Amino acid sequence: MALIVQKYGGTSVGNPERIKNVAKRVARSYAEGHKLVVVVSAMSGETNRLIGLAKEIQPNPDPRELDVVISTGEQVTIGLLSMALQAEGLKARSYTGSQVRILTDNSFTKARILKIDEDRMRRDLDEGCIVVVAGFQGVDDAGNITTLGRGGSDTTGVALAAALHADECQIYTDVDGVYTTDPRIVPEARKLDHITFEEMLEMASLGSKVLQIRSVEFAGKYKVKLRVLSSFQDGGEGTLITFEENDKMEQPIISGIAFSRDEAKLTVQGVPDRPGIAYQILGPVAEANIDVDMIIQNVGQDGTTDFSFTVPRGEYDRTMDILSGVKTHMGAREVRGDRYMAKVSVVGVGMRSHVGIASRMFRTLAEEGINIQMISTSEIKISVAIDEKYLELAVRVLHKAFELDQPAG
Amino acid sequence: MALIVQKYGGTSVGNPERIKNVAKRVARSYAEGHKLVVVVSAMSGETNRLIGLAKEIQPNPDPRELDVVISTGEQVTIGLLSMALQAEGLKARSYTGSQVRILTDNSFTKARILKIDEDRMRRDLDEGCIVVVAGFQGVDDAGNITTLGRGGSDTTGVALAAALHADECQIYTDVDGVYTTDPRIVPEARKLDHITFEEMLEMASLGSKVLQIRSVEFAGKYKVKLRVLSSFQDGGEGTLITFEENDKMEQPIISGIAFSRDEAKLTVQGVPDRPGIAYQILGPVAEANIDVDMIIQNVGQDGTTDFSFTVPRGEYDRTMDILSGVKTHMGAREVRGDRYMAKVSVVGVGMRSHVGIASRMFRTLAEEGINIQMISTSEIKISVAIDEKYLELAVRVLHKAFELDQPAG
Repeated sequence: MALIVQKYGGTSVGNPERIKNVAKRVARSYAEGHKLVVVVSAMSGETNRLIGLAKEIQPNPDPRELDVVISTGEQVTIGLLSMALQAEGLKARSYTGSQVRILTDNSFTKARILKIDEDRMRRDLDEGCIVVVAGFQGVDDAGNITTLGRGGSDTTGVALAAALHADECQIYTDVDGVYTTDPRIVPEARKLDHITFEEMLEMASLGSKVLQIRSVEFAGKYKVKLRVLSSFQDGGEGTLITFEENDKMEQPIISGIAFSRDEAKLTVQGVPDRPGIAYQILGPVAEANIDVDMIIQNVGQDGTTDFSFTVPRGEYDRTMDILSGVKTHMGAREVRGDRYMAKVSVVGVGMRSHVGIASRMFRTLAEEGINIQMISTSEIKISVAIDEKYLELAVRVLHKAFELDQPAG
Repeated sequence: MALIVQKYGGTSVGNPERIKNVAKRVARSYAEGHKLVVVVSAMSGETNRLIGLAKEIQPNPDPRELDVVISTGEQVTIGLLSMALQAEGLKARSYTGSQVRILTDNSFTKARILKIDEDRMRRDLDEGCIVVVAGFQGVDDAGNITTLGRGGSDTTGVALAAALHADECQIYTDVDGVYTTDPRIVPEARKLDHITFEEMLEMASLGSKVLQIRSVEFAGKYKVKLRVLSSFQDGGEGTLITFEENDKMEQPIISGIAFSRDEAKLTVQGVPDRPGIAYQILGPVAEANIDVDMIIQNVGQDGTTDFSFTVPRGEYDRTMDILSGVKTHMGAREVRGDRYMAKVSVVGVGMRSHVGIASRMFRTLAEEGINIQMISTSEIKISVAIDEKYLELAVRVLHKAFELDQPAG
């Protein structure tokens, strides 16, 4: 008998019929003898509907009041799922974030979890009751309702698993696990039985939307065993996210190809090459709360330098405006931009002990005539920025070059 | 400067545009120098939508979980109204029933208010902040969310006014006050400037849907000054519900004609006339939780009696089933029923000191050929049950006979 936290996302609880199906799935886990805490999101579309109402009132609604409004989405689901579980003949009781209570700081709309009282849940679990908890929400120490930001329900699941020292936190979603890459681009993509936390973090941060990155970090910090599963298919084992790098089976060198589409590149050309220029360029961008990702700096021969970086595409115009101001101030020659960039990365803990990964990657892309515009690396990943039109091609050839279509082992 | 509790119903906050209008109205009261607590219902249709979702899951949902689901309706409105007030440049803060906190018993879906903590509201009010509270909901001492039953937002408004010793509780609705009768039936119906609590209770219990009867009782118990106003029209004074019977102006004898449509009558004929038959007949009906209203018993000449009573029309079939069982058991001759009955009442504290009200009522109906099937009276009202098809006619002729179309005074 294990204590398991299961989390079901918005698509899994998208309508009453699906909620009943989730109840049946939970009932099967319960029949296997497990103690269960179930975390749910708002029914799909509901959070957006509520945000829409708020914006009709005020384009920039007060964050405290916005949290009051949007936290109702999950509250509806916990009530409905508890009813559905009772209809399956089970004992079930729902809790809002405030009732559990999931104590957070008071950063409305993006609060951080500080502490979880698990007494009440434990009492219910000991009585054979299934505990149903609203994801995405908490309460600050003044009793105000807070929310954790988009995808926060994953974080709630992991945080509850950590607080309860659960044996496993299962994230049920609309895919049946983590894949070597997006099967919509590479039909030969394989589901991974396991992946390390470090790899998962890289995959998540690079746009593989299976898990919210904050929840993966949280799981890493508290050593919560995470498993990604499908809520629509039966019987699969999903993908287990492990802490151990060396499993029984040989670790593949590369675990997957991650990518992100909506990138844009900006280049400040002909900047006088002196200390502090990176800060002078990126300082104003950071102050405008724009995330900068890849950064490169080329020193030219005339004592000037070219400075390039990528931002999310949606921030392209704002960034361009900022740089236009900076340009004059710095005496730069020109600001150029490319709105349509993509990033492709090979990820794998195995590359630590293997040389030649980068060269294989670059050669593969070169053979297809794909120009690499920027490169960045970490211990377990190599990323390149390329023209967006080559994205699918790049992912496909890299997937093949690293033999990810072959069974592992 | 007064402390005023304002309550806005579901139609008044039915969409974002209307919520903004409510905010403007609240802003005007604030500009007059009042301290304001605003209680709101769910946006019209929302509670039914939520109940519909619950019933898709389970036809008879668990009351605790149903309250978790349906209480979200008011929670959305408080957030939206607070945003709208802020957009008007005012300080506003929303509170759920649990946050205020409105302590209730744990009778889910029909909880009773036990106690209200007013400290937090007072602090906000002293800071010039408008306090926005979710109607219809509370919290039990174990922290479970409760709701007060349909129309419970009126009760929340009155209860907050009582707890805060407010100068007035204003109920904003889609009519501009309490009328001598329903203007849809009698176009000459007049708005009353004031009405006594006793009259209001009779009017409310007799189907004038302006105020929920429980809230009127609550106001009477705690001596809360209640005023009914329109949230769609400006400038009216609405109807004040007073405790003093003798106002400056002469009290009219009759204040209004109340009626209710969906009544049904059942008669057990030929019951042996012995003590205890009322209980034998009505006991099983009461046990089935069916409300019995008017009751009459005629003793016949053959030592048997006819026993008649009215029930809500929706309960007609169930009641008939129960009586069929009782009939044999009691040795009654027959059970007869009339599914289409209505009740019409004249209401007024003035009738205490005036004789002849009943005779004027009966004569008026007789002149129109309307047969009176049952009669019941209290100190301040006389009710008759009639065939439903005569309802509108009866209301019109009585309204005229008691000169309710003439200005009071």
